[in-house]
Amino acid sequence: MAETEWNKLGVYLRETQILGSIHNTLYWDQNTGMPRKGASWRSEQLTYIAKNLHRRNSSEEFFNLIKSAEVELLDSENNSDKKQILEGKKRNIELLIKEYNREKNLDPLLVELLAKAKSKGYESWQEAKRKSNFDIFLPFFEDLIKLRIEEAKQISDKYSPWETLAQPYEPDMTLKWLKKIFKPIKEIIPSLIPKIKKSKKYEWDLSPESQQNLCSKLLDEFGRDKDLVVIAKSPHPFSITLGPEDYRITTRIVDGQPFSSFLATAHEWGHSIYEQGLPSQSHQWFAWPLGQATSMGVHESQSLFWENRIVKSKSFSKRFFKEFISEGCSFENHFDLWKSINHLKVGLNRVEADEVTYGLHILIRTELEIDLIEGDLSPKDIPNEWNKRYKELLGIEPSNDSEGCLQDVHWSEGAFGYFPSYLLGHIISAQISCQLERDIGLIDNLIEDGEYEKIIFWLKDNIHKYGRAVNSMELVKNITNEELTSHYFISHLRSKINDFC
Amino acid sequence: MAETEWNKLGVYLRETQILGSIHNTLYWDQNTGMPRKGASWRSEQLTYIAKNLHRRNSSEEFFNLIKSAEVELLDSENNSDKKQILEGKKRNIELLIKEYNREKNLDPLLVELLAKAKSKGYESWQEAKRKSNFDIFLPFFEDLIKLRIEEAKQISDKYSPWETLAQPYEPDMTLKWLKKIFKPIKEIIPSLIPKIKKSKKYEWDLSPESQQNLCSKLLDEFGRDKDLVVIAKSPHPFSITLGPEDYRITTRIVDGQPFSSFLATAHEWGHSIYEQGLPSQSHQWFAWPLGQATSMGVHESQSLFWENRIVKSKSFSKRFFKEFISEGCSFENHFDLWKSINHLKVGLNRVEADEVTYGLHILIRTELEIDLIEGDLSPKDIPNEWNKRYKELLGIEPSNDSEGCLQDVHWSEGAFGYFPSYLLGHIISAQISCQLERDIGLIDNLIEDGEYEKIIFWLKDNIHKYGRAVNSMELVKNITNEELTSHYFISHLRSKINDFC
Repeated sequence: MAETEWNKLGVYLRETQILGSIHNTLYWDQNTGMPRKGASWRSEQLTYIAKNLHRRNSSEEFFNLIKSAEVELLDSENNSDKKQILEGKKRNIELLIKEYNREKNLDPLLVELLAKAKSKGYESWQEAKRKSNFDIFLPFFEDLIKLRIEEAKQISDKYSPWETLAQPYEPDMTLKWLKKIFKPIKEIIPSLIPKIKKSKKYEWDLSPESQQNLCSKLLDEFGRDKDLVVIAKSPHPFSITLGPEDYRITTRIVDGQPFSSFLATAHEWGHSIYEQGLPSQSHQWFAWPLGQATSMGVHESQSLFWENRIVKSKSFSKRFFKEFISEGCSFENHFDLWKSINHLKVGLNRVEADEVTYGLHILIRTELEIDLIEGDLSPKDIPNEWNKRYKELLGIEPSNDSEGCLQDVHWSEGAFGYFPSYLLGHIISAQISCQLERDIGLIDNLIEDGEYEKIIFWLKDNIHKYGRAVNSMELVKNITNEELTSHYFISHLRSKINDFC
Repeated sequence: MAETEWNKLGVYLRETQILGSIHNTLYWDQNTGMPRKGASWRSEQLTYIAKNLHRRNSSEEFFNLIKSAEVELLDSENNSDKKQILEGKKRNIELLIKEYNREKNLDPLLVELLAKAKSKGYESWQEAKRKSNFDIFLPFFEDLIKLRIEEAKQISDKYSPWETLAQPYEPDMTLKWLKKIFKPIKEIIPSLIPKIKKSKKYEWDLSPESQQNLCSKLLDEFGRDKDLVVIAKSPHPFSITLGPEDYRITTRIVDGQPFSSFLATAHEWGHSIYEQGLPSQSHQWFAWPLGQATSMGVHESQSLFWENRIVKSKSFSKRFFKEFISEGCSFENHFDLWKSINHLKVGLNRVEADEVTYGLHILIRTELEIDLIEGDLSPKDIPNEWNKRYKELLGIEPSNDSEGCLQDVHWSEGAFGYFPSYLLGHIISAQISCQLERDIGLIDNLIEDGEYEKIIFWLKDNIHKYGRAVNSMELVKNITNEELTSHYFISHLRSKINDFC
């Protein structure tokens, strides 16, 4: 490798990537294998990595490497890069400077305190959830909020505090833009709720072993390479990348919810296939910003695509019917399977929510956390406010905190600004799916023919391969020739209601 | 915590410990969860950690911290430590200086090359073993040997090259001493082989699920805390500590060997219970040398104690008979179970070997690796030499390299000097078990009464709690009032043969 400034920067980024992937390995183990008492030492390990990552990402050495690479890049007389490569390199530098500017102002002590507060938050949340007692979590939650507000203050960019915290998940997102996108959903979905009550519920279940077999068959169907993608169980399903050829997916078994693990597997597969399609895979931008996902909204659009557009389709039920039967499902035909997997029901749980009401779960969380970070909502009032807003928007109320405000892991890890990504994912997925069907045919037909490779190729060619070359709004516009709009999502919901209610 | 030189050194050691435990977490995941294609990136991660560990362990900063702590310690006028604490502190300093002296002479480039060679060695060995083709492994094996010989040269202490490499496993061990200990075994065991052929073999098997259940029940029987000790599967069973309250054990299912996973679980439990009993657990010497195991020989004595003295005892078979029956075993009485689990048979596989012939497997490996490191044995001649020596000592020959010289993982990770620990473990275990029975009664009686806690307490109080305060030879002498001798082990083998042949 030539001793260019560009390559020197690449070597530095590679070591940062090694450290980041070690962090991910520790996180994976924490959620899939670690004994409960290991939590406190794991927190020490994660804090050590977080401190070192911050030191690398905010060091003068790093800044000088970026600047030297930039100077070399702009020396157009001596630069023989082709236009597309040059654009990519410029974008990489732009993103690196943007991130460096966020990191450089952060007090290392704050970084350390935050890493510890996240571990403690997660640990106390687990106990609080188990005992359904918000008070156990409250002091750690208060700490996390205080520290993250301080973080936003130290970063001090052009965004409001909540927007600042949300930037790593959804770059360039503003509250004004978000409200505009979410507005039609908040207005229309509640009016659809009365219809949902007509959706027929099928009471049945499958043994954990059968669910596990079905998940495994599902991944085989999608073309999973077992030497590349590993599956495990964790309390909260997730997907994570531990190396350029090391992808992990988790799922979980929920009593009385025979589709829960199956849908979670499809969902996490969608995340994983996005990561597998990033240009890091080809090593072109490996360890560089362009080798990363552009936003969590786009990430969710990919997972939701596999969960809702593929697995919940009529032709998928037809194709997989015999697999369900052989695992003990007693439906008479695939229509019943299809109806059962698409069952619509107002519920208290976000992860188990149907497509129609899912958005309301997100609206409540998003508005609550904005009020926590920027408004005058006090952390101690979360249980009451949570229940009140569920009553208002969904017409139901949790009977305890475990099924209410303690159900999700995110806040316990200090992840504010993440929740909207889920709903943006639904919206993006709906708009992109229309374009996919215009380009390569109806999804139902593609599935009937087992054309998963064709679908993956389209997703990769239109979305994955761009990495962070463009942000999510530009990406959607480039693909669909239209600004992002919730119109496609809402009409998808209406047709769903027509089919099932 | 007071700002003493001692405490400053403690902070430094703690961070080293964090890094070391991250290494162990990566190793654990590599063997229990990682997809095959993840190997190359995992090697990058492990190399990064190895480089940083070496940097820390050989830095001037570290040396100065040790020296300042030593000066403070020897300032007897101002030192108010009680005698025992003072002795412990002095021993810690002595061991730290010893290790620093080993590390300081190592070229960082060699450390990096070695870390990479170990990963590549392990990867190529897996493939070679799968395909039963030594040639796939040979070039990486040659590299490893070359690099480790260079390492011994750079360390350049008073020991011979092989002894130098063996020191981390068995401190103060010399070839002369080892030959003396092993001599009676090499002379006597081959003469016992003809008798073994009379041991009755029971042909039966258990389903993987039943074996898994039995392993789980076994750990419950021993008093495992599920929040502290986690169990998983891996190609080669092992035990590892990932944090002061995070212990892991693996096992594996072998077709046609219904006791394999069960005995491996008991074995790894023994390793784990030693680690759990080290003074690191009480945090007294946590992150200090005294918080570590004194040698791999002692470590093996602990694992072999649980495998051979507990699980293979008559009263254990009596106690666990109904559990085996309920999992599908069809023996008529516990005597048959006892005879079956103690079956003696000359075989090719070390891990599955019986107690009598086990030592010969070790003798072959030990002599081969001494010839590789110090003699004129060429790596390419290993398959032939291996087969020749098996024929000579055990009277049987492998039909391929997979069941021959490729069966063990150790050499693929460059671990030379490790194998003797297994046989030393047998010898130590036999001598210590006699003392345990003199102190707290016959093992058979203790098991009959379910007195595992009493056994663990004795082991902890006589062995575990000393950490590295004394080396293995001194430890055995302190406990038994006698130098280490193979006499107890040989008479145990003779009584075994009387019982079963």
